[in-house]
Amino acid sequence: MYMHVTAPTQYVEANGIRFAHRRFGKETGVPLLFMQHFRGGMDNWDPAITDGFAKGRPVILFNNAGVASSSGETPSTIEAMAEYAADFVNALGLSQVDLLGFSIGGYVAQALSLQRPKLVRCLMLVGTGPRGGEPTTDSLQRARTLPEGGLEDFLYLFFSPSASSQAAGRAFWERRHLRKNDVDPPSSPQTMKAQAAAFTEWLQARGERFSELKGITQPALVVNGNRDIMIPTINSFTLSQHIPNAQLIIYPDSGHGSLFQYPDLFLFHARKFLDG
Amino acid sequence: MYMHVTAPTQYVEANGIRFAHRRFGKETGVPLLFMQHFRGGMDNWDPAITDGFAKGRPVILFNNAGVASSSGETPSTIEAMAEYAADFVNALGLSQVDLLGFSIGGYVAQALSLQRPKLVRCLMLVGTGPRGGEPTTDSLQRARTLPEGGLEDFLYLFFSPSASSQAAGRAFWERRHLRKNDVDPPSSPQTMKAQAAAFTEWLQARGERFSELKGITQPALVVNGNRDIMIPTINSFTLSQHIPNAQLIIYPDSGHGSLFQYPDLFLFHARKFLDG
Repeated sequence: MYMHVTAPTQYVEANGIRFAHRRFGKETGVPLLFMQHFRGGMDNWDPAITDGFAKGRPVILFNNAGVASSSGETPSTIEAMAEYAADFVNALGLSQVDLLGFSIGGYVAQALSLQRPKLVRCLMLVGTGPRGGEPTTDSLQRARTLPEGGLEDFLYLFFSPSASSQAAGRAFWERRHLRKNDVDPPSSPQTMKAQAAAFTEWLQARGERFSELKGITQPALVVNGNRDIMIPTINSFTLSQHIPNAQLIIYPDSGHGSLFQYPDLFLFHARKFLDG
Repeated sequence: MYMHVTAPTQYVEANGIRFAHRRFGKETGVPLLFMQHFRGGMDNWDPAITDGFAKGRPVILFNNAGVASSSGETPSTIEAMAEYAADFVNALGLSQVDLLGFSIGGYVAQALSLQRPKLVRCLMLVGTGPRGGEPTTDSLQRARTLPEGGLEDFLYLFFSPSASSQAAGRAFWERRHLRKNDVDPPSSPQTMKAQAAAFTEWLQARGERFSELKGITQPALVVNGNRDIMIPTINSFTLSQHIPNAQLIIYPDSGHGSLFQYPDLFLFHARKFLDG
């Protein structure tokens, strides 16, 4: 059976885009589609998490339009990214998926759940926030977001300053680099620029602030670290207050990448959520 | 083996108080001490929860000074209640306990953890808040808190208005009345008055708001419903932001009594937390 490190990159074409993706795990069940953070591609996921989920369900990683090994241009709004994601899911012939949206991928997961409610069974929103949410006040965060991220950037941006969180960050970094063959190229400057524009646009409320979250009728699990300097943790609380059927879990001594700090605990909670 | 419905009420004397208590469950392991809500006694716990925990550890229910079947007067500060609780634990000869503090019992659990840090291994804070937290704005809540609570009051105060939450409330009410023999008398007007005074005093910050929470060094699990009209849910978020090692879980479509609405899910999360 394929796993995170061995699953071959495959391609499917839809709406003029050649979508790179990898599928592994159990053959039957509702597939879990992973939606990645700013600049990230398929290789930026944690094998501890992807393989952990794959034991119980099909797992699908993909690069959205323009990202890394997918063709095309990355659009500059979250809603357009969600449309491309729907094209991709349809091209795979899937009638329903679960979503794990991390960071900007959590924005796309929300937009997709609103645009195609029947396509999404459950969604997990990790290290993310609502449209019109609270922006970060961390100036160093802003300075470090755009350059190509190395270990030190990830340790600062995704983990807390404590020794144990930093050690968990280094362990994540090793797992994240276990795959050596058939890896993604980095995302292009066009993708970074378009994602940054979409990120900024998402900070603007439309109409009554947070009112659109009432339309997310799927069960939602909202997860974050208690000290997220990328998308402040209060945004996760806000999501859980406005999405009608949302459970919130906040982990201690952790930041934006809490799922990579506590992969086993996150899997424990997330599988319970998905399996009901 | 004794269970919630069959465990006999026992008494132990300390500091001039005859403390009513019941112990059941596994003989070995760190006992889990339950700290009850405003006006409540041992019979106000949910057997689904107490018996659920009892499968894996000793469970101890007790009435603090003056409450229900315990003798003495109820003091009018949270800190004095915590001192009495420490007297009770010492009188049982226990060197360490875990705490499940619900509502005002969560205030007492925080105070006890600060006063006797070595006595407390882990604490669970459910439907509660920090000293100096946000008061309720629900006027109907305030009007209904003081009278002796019947089913309709519990359904309004502890559950959400949805049909499924109200149904869960009625199921809780049935479980809560399964014990027919050797039950507590209701708490006295003196207890209600003293607890109300302690509750009001707890709303006043001392020094820098929330700064004392840094002193709670034990692992903490903070739990609430997403619509708590007794102690607003934002207070649970605040606890998790200021207690150094706190995990937060907020359940959907639920209120102050979220643990009674989702006893199985709460047990699933709480046992994972306690067992590490």
